[in-house]
Amino acid sequence: MSIPHTVPAWTDEVLDFAQDLVGQARSIALRWFRHRPPIETKADASPVTVADRGVEEFLRAEIARRYPDHGLLGEEFGIQAGEAPIVWSIDPIDGTRSFITGNPLWGCLLAVLHEQRPLFGIIDIPSTGERWVGVRGRGSWLNGERCRTRTVTSLQEAILQATTPDIFEGEDARAFERLSAAVHLRRFGGDCYAYALLASGMIDLVAEAGLMPYDYLALAPVIEEAGGVITDWQGRALSPKSDGRVLAAANAELHRQALEVLAAQA
Amino acid sequence: MSIPHTVPAWTDEVLDFAQDLVGQARSIALRWFRHRPPIETKADASPVTVADRGVEEFLRAEIARRYPDHGLLGEEFGIQAGEAPIVWSIDPIDGTRSFITGNPLWGCLLAVLHEQRPLFGIIDIPSTGERWVGVRGRGSWLNGERCRTRTVTSLQEAILQATTPDIFEGEDARAFERLSAAVHLRRFGGDCYAYALLASGMIDLVAEAGLMPYDYLALAPVIEEAGGVITDWQGRALSPKSDGRVLAAANAELHRQALEVLAAQA
Repeated sequence: MSIPHTVPAWTDEVLDFAQDLVGQARSIALRWFRHRPPIETKADASPVTVADRGVEEFLRAEIARRYPDHGLLGEEFGIQAGEAPIVWSIDPIDGTRSFITGNPLWGCLLAVLHEQRPLFGIIDIPSTGERWVGVRGRGSWLNGERCRTRTVTSLQEAILQATTPDIFEGEDARAFERLSAAVHLRRFGGDCYAYALLASGMIDLVAEAGLMPYDYLALAPVIEEAGGVITDWQGRALSPKSDGRVLAAANAELHRQALEVLAAQA
Repeated sequence: MSIPHTVPAWTDEVLDFAQDLVGQARSIALRWFRHRPPIETKADASPVTVADRGVEEFLRAEIARRYPDHGLLGEEFGIQAGEAPIVWSIDPIDGTRSFITGNPLWGCLLAVLHEQRPLFGIIDIPSTGERWVGVRGRGSWLNGERCRTRTVTSLQEAILQATTPDIFEGEDARAFERLSAAVHLRRFGGDCYAYALLASGMIDLVAEAGLMPYDYLALAPVIEEAGGVITDWQGRALSPKSDGRVLAAANAELHRQALEVLAAQA
């Protein structure tokens, strides 16, 4: 059986390197987890710790050494050569608020974009030792085991998750409430972990707002290659220029229904 | 150095037995975790799985065999000899909604009540291998390491957590919103894990409503012996007859301030 070659020839080499890097980065973050890392508040009022910065510095330095012509897009240290054919998206600690409150469900997100489209994505959860990897055209895996989304196709049976209701403002909050009212169960918590659970067929929908490119670019291959759909709230593919509203669904039918509810006027 | 003897002489024997039991129960629950356990809906509309029932059946059978004169108070199989001098409180899976959605932060809660007051409590988290144990007059430990709550004494610096905003109705919801507005950060998620994080000094307040005795009786010794305070929303000690509103705080000063905000009229 041959592997479908819908990805560039260098994919395996870069993916192996990326997996090795996130594995090494675990210890940098875990050294500070539950050990009172110094916390600062960023311009957008979100917290950042010495662990976020340490992980991103490590990843950027290693990537630049191995692939000096690749671009970098990171949460803490910004964009460098963002128009390069190959760009790495880095969220050193997705779920910093979980990290600083001792909740183990934070993760390191890494994606490689080829011509501005995610080629592969990694969701690595150091505390639990779980790693989800999705590669365009190939599939999604949790610790080497294939992931598939659920086949639930009616909103009334679906489980919806979002990190917190506090990410929604104005009309977004009303749209999220409409979607909540249409589903079987809504849950809060999770950051990247919610999307990983969706890829593994445990929940069916994640709707969020206010996300940044490094928050969602790594999620797309993991979800899509597990059978799911992830777009903005207008149904458009995610890119570094999306508006931060993200809707992930276990399948196309559920995605269509959820988009309709989000768009409906009250 | 001698251990203060504020507890009955049989405490160690019963505690050792209890720890051994929850350790054995881990495999019963983990066998079903992320393996699509059959789910039913209870009279109160909450879900229950074959795993909840399997764990509680195992614990009840083992306790009854070893201590046939002890009482039992369990989530799935009710009360038996509830007025006995020694009663076991059992929540086989606290956080069943987490359990069925693949979120690892659910736990098994076990408490032993002596003359209707919790003598010790155990919060066991099978997925992460963490176990919090609190023994009246002795202390609280996470996997054998002493836990202490934080010393933050102003609401403006405090971190508040609750499982979900959806547990609050009417005036309770307004009270929770007042408390949310008074603190530095509010977080959702967790069930028993939120209280465990409070005992470990990671967060400062948990306010919830609609809890049942088996949800909170095991939490009290863990939190109190770590330096915290846990009561109902009127500041009264928790007992099997409490009204289900629970407020846990890292210390007495924070508890006093939070009670005031919860009680204030809008």
